[in-house]
Amino acid sequence: MILSALLTSVGINLGLCFLFFVLYSILRKQPGNITVYAPRLVAEGETQQRGQFNLESLLPTAGWVRKAWQPSEEEFLSNVGLDAVVYMRIFTFSLKVFTIGGIVGIFVLLPVNYFGDQLSHDISDLASKSLDSFSISNVNNGSNWLWIHFCAAYLFTGVVCYLLYYEYRYISSKRIAYFYSSKPQPQQFTILVRGVPVPSGSTCGETVESFFTENHPSTYLSHSVVRRSSKLQGLISDAEKLYRRLAHLKLKNHTPQEFKRDGFLGLFGRKVDILDHYEKKLEDLLDNVRLEQSSLAGKEVPAAFVSFKSRLGAAVALHIQQGVKPTEWLTGQAPEPQDVHWPFFSASYTKSWICKLVVFIACVALTILFLIPVVLVQGLTNLDQLETWFPFLESILNLTVVSEVITGYLPSLILQMFLSFVPPIMIMFSSFQGYISLSQIEKSACIKVLWFTIWNIFFANVLSGSALYRVNVFLEPKEIPSVLAEAVPGQASFFIAYVVTSGWTSLLSSELFRLTPLMKSYFKRVFAGKAGDEFEVPSIPYHSDIPKILFFGLLGVTYFFLAPLILPFLLVYYCMGYIIYRNQVSGMPSFLNIQVILSLMSFTHPSSSLIYVAPKKKRYCQKRFLPIFKAYPQECLVKKDRKDLNDPSIAEFYEALVTAYKGPTLMPIQYPGSSDGRSSPLLLHAAQV
Amino acid sequence: MILSALLTSVGINLGLCFLFFVLYSILRKQPGNITVYAPRLVAEGETQQRGQFNLESLLPTAGWVRKAWQPSEEEFLSNVGLDAVVYMRIFTFSLKVFTIGGIVGIFVLLPVNYFGDQLSHDISDLASKSLDSFSISNVNNGSNWLWIHFCAAYLFTGVVCYLLYYEYRYISSKRIAYFYSSKPQPQQFTILVRGVPVPSGSTCGETVESFFTENHPSTYLSHSVVRRSSKLQGLISDAEKLYRRLAHLKLKNHTPQEFKRDGFLGLFGRKVDILDHYEKKLEDLLDNVRLEQSSLAGKEVPAAFVSFKSRLGAAVALHIQQGVKPTEWLTGQAPEPQDVHWPFFSASYTKSWICKLVVFIACVALTILFLIPVVLVQGLTNLDQLETWFPFLESILNLTVVSEVITGYLPSLILQMFLSFVPPIMIMFSSFQGYISLSQIEKSACIKVLWFTIWNIFFANVLSGSALYRVNVFLEPKEIPSVLAEAVPGQASFFIAYVVTSGWTSLLSSELFRLTPLMKSYFKRVFAGKAGDEFEVPSIPYHSDIPKILFFGLLGVTYFFLAPLILPFLLVYYCMGYIIYRNQVSGMPSFLNIQVILSLMSFTHPSSSLIYVAPKKKRYCQKRFLPIFKAYPQECLVKKDRKDLNDPSIAEFYEALVTAYKGPTLMPIQYPGSSDGRSSPLLLHAAQV
Repeated sequence: MILSALLTSVGINLGLCFLFFVLYSILRKQPGNITVYAPRLVAEGETQQRGQFNLESLLPTAGWVRKAWQPSEEEFLSNVGLDAVVYMRIFTFSLKVFTIGGIVGIFVLLPVNYFGDQLSHDISDLASKSLDSFSISNVNNGSNWLWIHFCAAYLFTGVVCYLLYYEYRYISSKRIAYFYSSKPQPQQFTILVRGVPVPSGSTCGETVESFFTENHPSTYLSHSVVRRSSKLQGLISDAEKLYRRLAHLKLKNHTPQEFKRDGFLGLFGRKVDILDHYEKKLEDLLDNVRLEQSSLAGKEVPAAFVSFKSRLGAAVALHIQQGVKPTEWLTGQAPEPQDVHWPFFSASYTKSWICKLVVFIACVALTILFLIPVVLVQGLTNLDQLETWFPFLESILNLTVVSEVITGYLPSLILQMFLSFVPPIMIMFSSFQGYISLSQIEKSACIKVLWFTIWNIFFANVLSGSALYRVNVFLEPKEIPSVLAEAVPGQASFFIAYVVTSGWTSLLSSELFRLTPLMKSYFKRVFAGKAGDEFEVPSIPYHSDIPKILFFGLLGVTYFFLAPLILPFLLVYYCMGYIIYRNQVSGMPSFLNIQVILSLMSFTHPSSSLIYVAPKKKRYCQKRFLPIFKAYPQECLVKKDRKDLNDPSIAEFYEALVTAYKGPTLMPIQYPGSSDGRSSPLLLHAAQV
Repeated sequence: MILSALLTSVGINLGLCFLFFVLYSILRKQPGNITVYAPRLVAEGETQQRGQFNLESLLPTAGWVRKAWQPSEEEFLSNVGLDAVVYMRIFTFSLKVFTIGGIVGIFVLLPVNYFGDQLSHDISDLASKSLDSFSISNVNNGSNWLWIHFCAAYLFTGVVCYLLYYEYRYISSKRIAYFYSSKPQPQQFTILVRGVPVPSGSTCGETVESFFTENHPSTYLSHSVVRRSSKLQGLISDAEKLYRRLAHLKLKNHTPQEFKRDGFLGLFGRKVDILDHYEKKLEDLLDNVRLEQSSLAGKEVPAAFVSFKSRLGAAVALHIQQGVKPTEWLTGQAPEPQDVHWPFFSASYTKSWICKLVVFIACVALTILFLIPVVLVQGLTNLDQLETWFPFLESILNLTVVSEVITGYLPSLILQMFLSFVPPIMIMFSSFQGYISLSQIEKSACIKVLWFTIWNIFFANVLSGSALYRVNVFLEPKEIPSVLAEAVPGQASFFIAYVVTSGWTSLLSSELFRLTPLMKSYFKRVFAGKAGDEFEVPSIPYHSDIPKILFFGLLGVTYFFLAPLILPFLLVYYCMGYIIYRNQVSGMPSFLNIQVILSLMSFTHPSSSLIYVAPKKKRYCQKRFLPIFKAYPQECLVKKDRKDLNDPSIAEFYEALVTAYKGPTLMPIQYPGSSDGRSSPLLLHAAQV
């Protein structure tokens, strides 16, 4: 790739970015788009304040940038929560690292590279120079200038180590501070006990009760046995959906009575009033639910959530092996009540073990084999092929613009499309793996997507750059290093373009402009005419975003001393990302609990240090900081417990704690007519906590 | 090696074994050897019952075999302790495994091997047949008979898995039973805290006191700060030696007054009464000790032994992270008071880290490079070389017997001699590694010796069998499997001979007959004339014995389906070992604490399962049983603590507990004159516990 080509690409993408920016600035002010751009306001019911259409709302303004920039970290913390703060710090951390890297790279390494003459210097025109002239490939073989690269690499490693240490320390102190300031939460007082050895003639509940009153006489509070309830969950989820639709219909009192046929697909049968129809259906469903609930007693799983009177009591049971047999009375941290992944408990041990194995194989297979269909589909964009298949397209395809778009943009569009399926697939895989909480599922999916990205974008591109080696390289392991040494710098220009297109533009289009939800909402309004009908508040898709951010970090670190030209583009990416995510995070509710992002930190930081620094340092940081992300130390627990003793509301909290982990399937079900129409009465447990 | 050669070797070694057996049967009855063969009796002061010399004591009898065989496991447990029982179970376990393996190997695999005709069958004489005819090498290439070998291998693996499971379960139940039946022990109530963050202007003791009264208000009992005391320890150890010698001299009242010159090496200077001389020296030493003790206050190490009122209290502090910073308030299990390796605490963090690194490198270097000097020395046994160097030996060397002994026995003798240095070296290495207890040092040395043995005996012999490959093989990793596939069965006959010579004969000579201690004791009596002067009770050298036993297990498992002829010899080895060690263990006091062997079990069993079975099974067993060897579960702790509440002696125990971990250097020192002459008053702490 020559310099002018890069500049063209940057120009096009800058234009696109500007377009999305302007469009967002206008569209966000349109009342119709409020569910797309400010779902939190909708969820909090502040939508009524918005005015009607006026001309001003058609002018693009950048006020939201200022708004997103303004709040200090403390305000951010109190408004949005710790997980969002930590998420934003990934950006500030990357910015710090790559600012320093960028200064060294651009002002020291780039000139050194440029004034080497390993590559031919026939072209004196700057614009037509190959980008490789700016990379380490241009330094003469055996030149002493290479020492500068080594020094820079070590200096950079040192700086990253220091920054990482500082970051870890900061976040762990924040975590402790958050813990001190938090109200009593059920998950702090509760553990999940699995492998309860139920003797014949006794129930799981009795066994748990007697074991914990015996061994934790002073701290044991209560327990909730987990029950096998997949069927019931299906019924309840159906009932909830139906109820929400009904409530929506009732709200729209002014609409004319709608009728619907009660036969197949609503097309046949006699006409019925749609309201009556839904109410009757819901009634049936609720009867089924009650029936199922009463028969649940026999479907106990040998697992229970056990609550204690103090955090220390829960910690003791969590950390000390409980039963004599290490396979019985297994204890684990309880997730937040609304974060529990109930269906998991339905699986037997063997089944979940097989699931894990299958998921592992499926992941590896998907990661390795993903490129095959993509390459095949990309082969279709071969113009001659297309002309042969669809002769009537010939005249169109011969236009330069069309052919350039098809050959230039279609392959990457197809790749992006395929890639966008990966995070949901990984989430699906992870949910089969037997995790007990939604956040664990998300974390596991995040790890999977990261490895997938590293393999399929980084290595596949690096190796396919020299297609000759693609197969041979694995047959001769000895040559892998030399192949990589040749291929990695060679792909620098590709990755610079990748940062610009996939980083900048898709960041703006997908995260800021929210193209897909916007189009969905638009089509819904136009064709279905039921905007806001089944409104669901989105959360930040950590599992697809974090791997992307980390991957750009990997690119930056890898190419810092190979081709420093990539760094300015990365810096722009992180700056834009910082602003945009600050804007999004404030606009969106963070439904995910604090544990997600913190446990993600515990993954992402070791993983980024794996990328950034030597293993020695990594081990130190793991030893030094990882424990704090896994459990709270006794010092904190005792202090916090002591504070609770003086809290008058603790008795009330204990009461709520007893029922907190009953599970959605065992909550009493209210008749929907008595509700206020905004929150589902079926989700009572969420309100209680 | 042909069959008759093997039979000759077996015959010679059987003869040697019989000789040692007879000699032991006679010598053990001689009163002079009682310190060699029954040190426990000496230590328990039961030596007086033995009669004087009579003719009967010159007749070899096998009564000791019956005596060693007789006691049941319960008797054994109550007399000698759990560690000895577990040690013996390694033998019974190996016997079980190889009995089953032997039956399958001899009656199924051996005939299959023998009736193959891959190797030439020109020789019809059974005695001159190569041993390879009995190995898998004799099965025809591509023969269907090989399936029998595979089936046998899987069957064997299954049996070993089952037996291992059963063994683990048995021993873990024994461990719990032992815990229930044990008296309160200081190490059950105590933890070692390291990394105490001492604020300036405060002492370590105050910091520990305030931290634990704050965070463990109901269970904290006391603490002992560790002090840097290498110098003091040297003084005390000198004083103890001197005191023991003095006590011994005083006991021998009937001996005439001995004089000694007080100058250099006792050769010059004026004559002094030896008793007065020693007493004065001891007095000086004790003054020094007291002086050093009083100046110790400033030499605090930021570490302390913290004792609790209940086992559960100690377990809580052990398992839960104590301080906010994970590098501070590090907790670990306390070893038994007499098992603490005090010198370790003298090292600073950096120093101990460097020590660890150095030891690791030294171990690897020793393990890999050990063979070089051995091969060089063995080269000396080349007769021509010797004759050139020492021409006067020519006539002797030309004798067939002498030359056979030199070429046949000398190399293996030299190898054995070199090998005997390895366990002490490994112990030395391990003691530099910063372990806090002697048993941990022994365990670590045990692991080192095991790897050393596997590398230097197994791989070195296997690979040197085909010397051509020795260097090349590491340059072409792809060929390692094929080289091993050729070399491992080829060395079967060597290992059969190895089992017979190194297993049988050295077991009898070193363990039963105790050749080295016997010769030492003999030379002492003859030359120094001071038998029993500085009598030290030996303990079983677990770190050199267990690797040997495990190594024979490895041989058995490896050659079970390659060359099953090895199994009967192994079975004989384990049978002999069982009887002999039962005899030794009853005769020797097990000074090592229960933790040694149990933590060794936690190593040896995973390690043997690493050898025996597939990793899957290993992981299951680790998960299923390993936790119980590391810490006691809450169920047991609570039950045991509750029992203590009713024990009237617990108050007394608490009092002793407070001073249990003061360390030998802080114990009050009594004047030696006041003691009864049998136990050292300097070792007061051992008696208190």
